[in-house]
Amino acid sequence: MNEFDLIYQTFLAEQSGFQKAHQFAMIDRSIGDDCAVVTPPYGQKLVTCTDTLVQGRHFADDWNSVEKLAFEIGYKAVAVNVSDLVAMGAKPHSILLAIALPARLANSAWLNQFAKGLFFACNQADMALIGGDTTKNDKLVITITAQGFASQCVYRHTANVGDDIYVSGTVGDAGFALHHLDSPLVHRLHMPTPRIRLGQALAGKASAMIDISDGLFQDLTHIAKQSQVGFCLNLENLPCSDVLAKVPLAQRLLYQLTGGDDYELLFTLPKDTPLLVTDTAVCKIGEITQQIDYRLMFYHQVVSLENPYPFLTFPNLTGYQHFG
Amino acid sequence: MNEFDLIYQTFLAEQSGFQKAHQFAMIDRSIGDDCAVVTPPYGQKLVTCTDTLVQGRHFADDWNSVEKLAFEIGYKAVAVNVSDLVAMGAKPHSILLAIALPARLANSAWLNQFAKGLFFACNQADMALIGGDTTKNDKLVITITAQGFASQCVYRHTANVGDDIYVSGTVGDAGFALHHLDSPLVHRLHMPTPRIRLGQALAGKASAMIDISDGLFQDLTHIAKQSQVGFCLNLENLPCSDVLAKVPLAQRLLYQLTGGDDYELLFTLPKDTPLLVTDTAVCKIGEITQQIDYRLMFYHQVVSLENPYPFLTFPNLTGYQHFG
Repeated sequence: MNEFDLIYQTFLAEQSGFQKAHQFAMIDRSIGDDCAVVTPPYGQKLVTCTDTLVQGRHFADDWNSVEKLAFEIGYKAVAVNVSDLVAMGAKPHSILLAIALPARLANSAWLNQFAKGLFFACNQADMALIGGDTTKNDKLVITITAQGFASQCVYRHTANVGDDIYVSGTVGDAGFALHHLDSPLVHRLHMPTPRIRLGQALAGKASAMIDISDGLFQDLTHIAKQSQVGFCLNLENLPCSDVLAKVPLAQRLLYQLTGGDDYELLFTLPKDTPLLVTDTAVCKIGEITQQIDYRLMFYHQVVSLENPYPFLTFPNLTGYQHFG
Repeated sequence: MNEFDLIYQTFLAEQSGFQKAHQFAMIDRSIGDDCAVVTPPYGQKLVTCTDTLVQGRHFADDWNSVEKLAFEIGYKAVAVNVSDLVAMGAKPHSILLAIALPARLANSAWLNQFAKGLFFACNQADMALIGGDTTKNDKLVITITAQGFASQCVYRHTANVGDDIYVSGTVGDAGFALHHLDSPLVHRLHMPTPRIRLGQALAGKASAMIDISDGLFQDLTHIAKQSQVGFCLNLENLPCSDVLAKVPLAQRLLYQLTGGDDYELLFTLPKDTPLLVTDTAVCKIGEITQQIDYRLMFYHQVVSLENPYPFLTFPNLTGYQHFG
């Protein structure tokens, strides 16, 4: 059995355990042909995204870690794409996996764990693996393309003046974990939870939505710029995990504003929309403003370059370039 | 302008030159949101594939070549995916580009040429770039996912006993060029021509189809195995370019049978189907047989391990493992 057969057999075996019917969009043809073939559900839009994880960028470079984290890498490669789909209000459907695989990892032990992580994430989102491509490379590079369907999509460019700004879960955990790999928050970095039910529940309700991958502040500016509006954020309302709450305030707020990889949903709702009840807590953290200005408030006082609270003199981090 | 802005601006500028209407499947939302959104055409199937090109595997490793071949690399990354779509009988629609980019190539000169090649191939196939992801890496790794639509797909597993076997264009050119980079056939390696019109014309007519990426013999065995049939190939009928015709017969047949990267279409038609007239010549090269046996004939004599014509004693090459 060569390594391509090995990969194929490994994935087939893992997938067979929980193949779902996917009746809402029939899979006519899956792995084994030139392409995958799906019958789109009537009247729904096709929603697609692609995300790459690179060894030494998105996860550790050293082989020991890559070998140990096979499950987590497989999981996260899917989860970050699922997060993009649900940030559009879409229902996840299927993935294609392109993997550039080093010889060192082309063994059934590593591939089994990787496949288990990948299908664990697929299973959470009720997705099937329908196609892919395997190549050899000196480093591990994984690109997953995810497909979903939606009756109504939620975009970034459609926030309205006066809308409330919300975020799901807690923010800053993954950014903190990246610098504290022994912290109890490390699961938030390696195994982020895409907010599947919440994202779908917000379709047709949220006026704009994005998932937090680059940091809350930067991702909120994406919504603001594309919607041609400003915002005012109330820093004291940023939701914080118990572990992160123990970090000194200035440092903690930095992680919450600029830490990436949280994969929480950041969205806007028309003012005073009744809160949705799903499996995920959400917090109101600010408001969309007419003035094109990205304002940070801390207990009703403006935080700015001219008026930097001593404990809020943000050092130079990604996202900071937009400040002031 | 950081490198992500540079990439975004470069691609936007190149794409704006020839953005087509894509009325058969409206693009609701393209680059700039969490996902791309497309309205699938009524009653058609969604056809998807993904293919990766890795520096040092699918194109040269050395930086001089990678820098010089920016256009060709961009072109080929799209073309190989288009070839997969049309091998299903699908009409190409759109691509997502995931690029892991070395710092050395993150300059407007290289990116411009790469984008020009990429959009040249998109334009040929009437496709739009609708999404993607950019990461940093030490080597160039490009994964493209292509989407198309089809009323009727042509699969690999549906060849029937008695069907005629056809191939488009000429075969063996890319395999020869790989070992003769100064040959006039090198364009066949760097800039393969996906058989777009032919592929679509065969939808609803061909009983089975595949594109030749691994070599004619190996790709034909994929059809045979999945269809649970055998085949008989008439080697004297394999279509040959003028340049390859000058290569000694045994060597030439090896390239034609086992050389990859031709991206010609290999398909089966019910016996005596009138030939299609498209922009691409096709040749009848054999027949599907009931006996599960992969037979090679040369002017009515069986070529086998027991009866190897001296000039046809195939040395050990990929594909050869299946012989005999």
